[in-house]
Amino acid sequence: MDQVREYSKAELMTCAQEEMQKQFQADRWSLREKVALTCRILFSQGHESGLAGQITTRIDDSSHFLTQRLGLGFDEITPSNLLEVTENLELVSGDGMPNPANRFHSWIYRARPEVRCIVHTHPLHTSALSMLELPLAISHMDTALLFDDVAFLPDWPGVPVGNEEGRIISEAIGDKRALLLAHHGLVVACPTVEEACVIAIQFERAAKLHLLASSAGKIRPISPALAREAHDWVLTASRSRATFAYYARRILRDLAVFE
Amino acid sequence: MDQVREYSKAELMTCAQEEMQKQFQADRWSLREKVALTCRILFSQGHESGLAGQITTRIDDSSHFLTQRLGLGFDEITPSNLLEVTENLELVSGDGMPNPANRFHSWIYRARPEVRCIVHTHPLHTSALSMLELPLAISHMDTALLFDDVAFLPDWPGVPVGNEEGRIISEAIGDKRALLLAHHGLVVACPTVEEACVIAIQFERAAKLHLLASSAGKIRPISPALAREAHDWVLTASRSRATFAYYARRILRDLAVFE
Amino acid sequence: MDQVREYSKAELMTCAQEEMQKQFQADRWSLREKVALTCRILFSQGHESGLAGQITTRIDDSSHFLTQRLGLGFDEITPSNLLEVTENLELVSGDGMPNPANRFHSWIYRARPEVRCIVHTHPLHTSALSMLELPLAISHMDTALLFDDVAFLPDWPGVPVGNEEGRIISEAIGDKRALLLAHHGLVVACPTVEEACVIAIQFERAAKLHLLASSAGKIRPISPALAREAHDWVLTASRSRATFAYYARRILRDLAVFE
Amino acid sequence: MDQVREYSKAELMTCAQEEMQKQFQADRWSLREKVALTCRILFSQGHESGLAGQITTRIDDSSHFLTQRLGLGFDEITPSNLLEVTENLELVSGDGMPNPANRFHSWIYRARPEVRCIVHTHPLHTSALSMLELPLAISHMDTALLFDDVAFLPDWPGVPVGNEEGRIISEAIGDKRALLLAHHGLVVACPTVEEACVIAIQFERAAKLHLLASSAGKIRPISPALAREAHDWVLTASRSRATFAYYARRILRDLAVFE
Repeated sequence: MDQVREYSKAELMTCAQEEMQKQFQADRWSLREKVALTCRILFSQGHESGLAGQITTRIDDSSHFLTQRLGLGFDEITPSNLLEVTENLELVSGDGMPNPANRFHSWIYRARPEVRCIVHTHPLHTSALSMLELPLAISHMDTALLFDDVAFLPDWPGVPVGNEEGRIISEAIGDKRALLLAHHGLVVACPTVEEACVIAIQFERAAKLHLLASSAGKIRPISPALAREAHDWVLTASRSRATFAYYARRILRDLAVFE
Repeated sequence: MDQVREYSKAELMTCAQEEMQKQFQADRWSLREKVALTCRILFSQGHESGLAGQITTRIDDSSHFLTQRLGLGFDEITPSNLLEVTENLELVSGDGMPNPANRFHSWIYRARPEVRCIVHTHPLHTSALSMLELPLAISHMDTALLFDDVAFLPDWPGVPVGNEEGRIISEAIGDKRALLLAHHGLVVACPTVEEACVIAIQFERAAKLHLLASSAGKIRPISPALAREAHDWVLTASRSRATFAYYARRILRDLAVFE
Repeated sequence: MDQVREYSKAELMTCAQEEMQKQFQADRWSLREKVALTCRILFSQGHESGLAGQITTRIDDSSHFLTQRLGLGFDEITPSNLLEVTENLELVSGDGMPNPANRFHSWIYRARPEVRCIVHTHPLHTSALSMLELPLAISHMDTALLFDDVAFLPDWPGVPVGNEEGRIISEAIGDKRALLLAHHGLVVACPTVEEACVIAIQFERAAKLHLLASSAGKIRPISPALAREAHDWVLTASRSRATFAYYARRILRDLAVFE
Repeated sequence: MDQVREYSKAELMTCAQEEMQKQFQADRWSLREKVALTCRILFSQGHESGLAGQITTRIDDSSHFLTQRLGLGFDEITPSNLLEVTENLELVSGDGMPNPANRFHSWIYRARPEVRCIVHTHPLHTSALSMLELPLAISHMDTALLFDDVAFLPDWPGVPVGNEEGRIISEAIGDKRALLLAHHGLVVACPTVEEACVIAIQFERAAKLHLLASSAGKIRPISPALAREAHDWVLTASRSRATFAYYARRILRDLAVFE
């Protein structure tokens, strides 16, 4: 046991991160597959609200992106029914039309060159929380990956179609990975599809935790310093890949059962 | 991007609505199929409460309607086991008897010639909310399609069999699309089966959001002007058809798995 | 429509009851089948809590009853693995031992000759409510079948094995159909298996409604006179048979899918 | 019935325990199988939170233990993909790496020679409760097996990788079977895999009951003397084996359906 005592927490953390990077390198899915998997994963994680919700991902370094066809649910998306559209939502390839409410995505992509994937959904608990006009409480280790990384737009600007909406949302999210829209839902903007998927899952879980905890008592804050350390510990590319791969396997297994 | 800035929100909304109308025109199901699908969809959306709940739809412009057989759950309804009954609930075709509590439907049909489909259910969250004798809070974009369109009957008149019940309910709903019955459930009255289905789904979701949000804080109102704009934006015939078609595909896929 | 106005509510209620009696007469299952179906139905309705929970039914007019084998979950009960035991819980036929906590059932059977089926479970919402030492609120039409028919034992007497427990519980339930045991669960005692099953389902639903409504506001009472009328309207033998048959068909359909 | 009255509660309890010991002796699974079954059972009982959560079990009386591979979910664990590691988390056999956050397990094993299985998870309701920095309320018969057996760590020490974490957690749990970690999750430390599994299930159920009850009112305490009696009545080796065997059968049946 003496060996155990030799290492400091910082050394152990570095060591573990390096080991995880080695273990979780492979990137086995194409961009279209990752987008379709994310739709299926988010559906299974309660992000469904009829035909609402969109995902886009930038294609390489172009101003084009992949998105789902309006009229299909997240549970119906496949790699082959995704649309390629311009940043003005003009169809480049695929059948159908994109969701006209996608317009604000272009604004975020222009303001944030590192962002390559945007998810916008109205999951149940995020929606309920959004009716209170309160910011999302981050007070748990699992959701610390959102600590200080969720902006808040307390005013609801109405139907999200205009360019005005694009300006408001891109300004509200600023340089954060996520945004809570009052009376509406969530926005996630990340450098990879995998990270966007993981952040969106944890956002809705954080909202559910917020509601459950608040129904029974008063949420206590966590130490900002420790929360930031946990944020950085959890939010690494290799961990996001590993977590995404896990959720993807679950979805593919569930689909396989029924096919 | 300059093109993006050219259009006003109003122009973009009109443009998107026209595009959606083109995309979602087809009406692929018969009236009986739409009623049976609605029963299955509502069951899957938590509208089950044993044998309670009814749906009726007017047959063409007659005073006859289709309804389910008493003793069958919503999950057991098929196009072929629906009953055709007169407005006095006399059996015209099919086996079995209609729910005697259907009586109030006739009152609404007589008062509202444009109504062709009525749904009445006791879903869990609507039922819980109904015990508080409070109107349904509409404070979210997705449920804005109910804004200023849900009447409220704060008194419970008891077992819903008599004609007195018909008078009370038809007066209470007035010209709204929906009605919350205290200590009881919901009523939806719409010009199409598709719209009635979509409104009933969102009603129960709105009740769930209301309860979840209230358990954690104080629901904040939304701007009536923006809510009305969202109401009209969401509540178009083409959008209801698209949303209904989506839920119908989900149900048919789930059934196919088991058959 | 003139015909509709001719009938009073009382006449319409009588007429509907008579019609329902005609429709729902058949008794297609044996006693063992009804007990096993009730176990499966209650499992699917959230009455599971590991190996806790028992059901007994009197065999004809003897002092023997059928019950499940200790160590099996409600989802594992079949007509053939039920035990026949004496009122002292001595095994008459079948393999295994009954739950020693069944002892209090004999006390109720002796005090209530009309009772032929007792259900005792610890479903989630009933259990949560039982921690508050508050009686079950009946404030909804669907749960009116429990109005003035649920006794309440506010003190928890500990492990339910002794005869003292039998005395306490049989006294507490008195002549009601149901009993809420603080810090413990529910007891239902009815003249038929079908009614016991239906009452147990509605009890847990009433507890869920109570918790959901209370989390969001103050439950308003319903008129006792109307509640009693609804109680008697819903709680008829033919309606219990129809409702039980519906839940039984659901269970049998679900099992068929997997077999 | 006179025979019924002859026995005291103590005699009946002893008698029932002896009978249960006879009925539930068999130990049909290997250590690896029991660990894998526990992972699957806990997944099905809501203990999932992505890739978080670990289980370890001591191999015989060595300082080695079995644990799952980092990157696999609890629903993916099989007897053959478990890792054997030293108490320093060095791989002895199997592919992959253990969760670096497992480090604190060694500290508990060293301090508690009777402990042979440790479960650490972040289930939803335990996580929500943990945000309130309140101890777990034990106020129900089913959860009495946790009475006076759940320690509480009100301070969150951040990312659980260092040895400091090991010291804090092993001190906090003391000689109890369970520990609630504020802003984090639960720890269970028991002499058998079966008991650890059963305690972990009831812990999360207790947290859910705590939240549900608190959302609707004020939880009332139970008599400590009766709670201790119930604790000892429920927490016997034969009962844990019987309960574990039941949950294992459920999982194996569910898996069989899909294979």
